[in-house]
Amino acid sequence: MFKTNEYFDGNVKSIAFNTETLAATIGVMAVGDYEFGTSQREYMTVTSGQLNVILPGQITAKTFNEGETFIVEANLSFKVSAVVETSYLCKYED
Amino acid sequence: MFKTNEYFDGNVKSIAFNTETLAATIGVMAVGDYEFGTSQREYMTVTSGQLNVILPGQITAKTFNEGETFIVEANLSFKVSAVVETSYLCKYED
Repeated sequence: MFKTNEYFDGNVKSIAFNTETLAATIGVMAVGDYEFGTSQREYMTVTSGQLNVILPGQITAKTFNEGETFIVEANLSFKVSAVVETSYLCKYED
Repeated sequence: MFKTNEYFDGNVKSIAFNTETLAATIGVMAVGDYEFGTSQREYMTVTSGQLNVILPGQITAKTFNEGETFIVEANLSFKVSAVVETSYLCKYED
C-alpha cells in the first residue's frame, strides 16, 4: 500500500504517500550529514528536530526548526545536517 | 536502524524514532476509519491532510487539520477517520 524507502544505509527512511494536491513523503533522519538530489521542485518541512541546510548555490548553512519549510528547485543537490533525530514532510511538485 | 510498522492491512504505516525528549512515530493513513488504543499518553499532530477524531468518552468527532494536535491519555481507545491520505507525528510520553 505505502512504499518505504531507505537511504544512506538506513540512516534516512521514508514512506511515500499523496497529499490532496502533491506526491509526498514523510521520513526520519538519524543524526548525520546527507546530500540529496532533486528531480522535481521539493517543499521540505521539518516536522520535529532540526536541520542545518546548505541550499543549492549557497556556501553557508541555514537552520530549519520544527514547522519551518525550505524549497529546492528540480535537478539540484543540497546538503542537510541533522543535529538531532529529525522527521520531515517532503512534497514534490509535478 | 528505524523500525517500520503496519496496521489495518497496511492502510496505516509508521516509522519509529526518537525526538530529543520523547519516543515518537511518523506515519501515514489511507482514507478510512480506524480505532487505536494507547499504552502511554500520546500527542498526535496532523502533519498533512485531515482527521476526524472521536476522542475517548466523546460521542461526536472533532476535526484536526494540518498543524493541529490532540492528546490521548494512556490505556484508552480513540477513533480516527482519515478524510484524505493523511500524515501524522505521534509522540509518546514515558
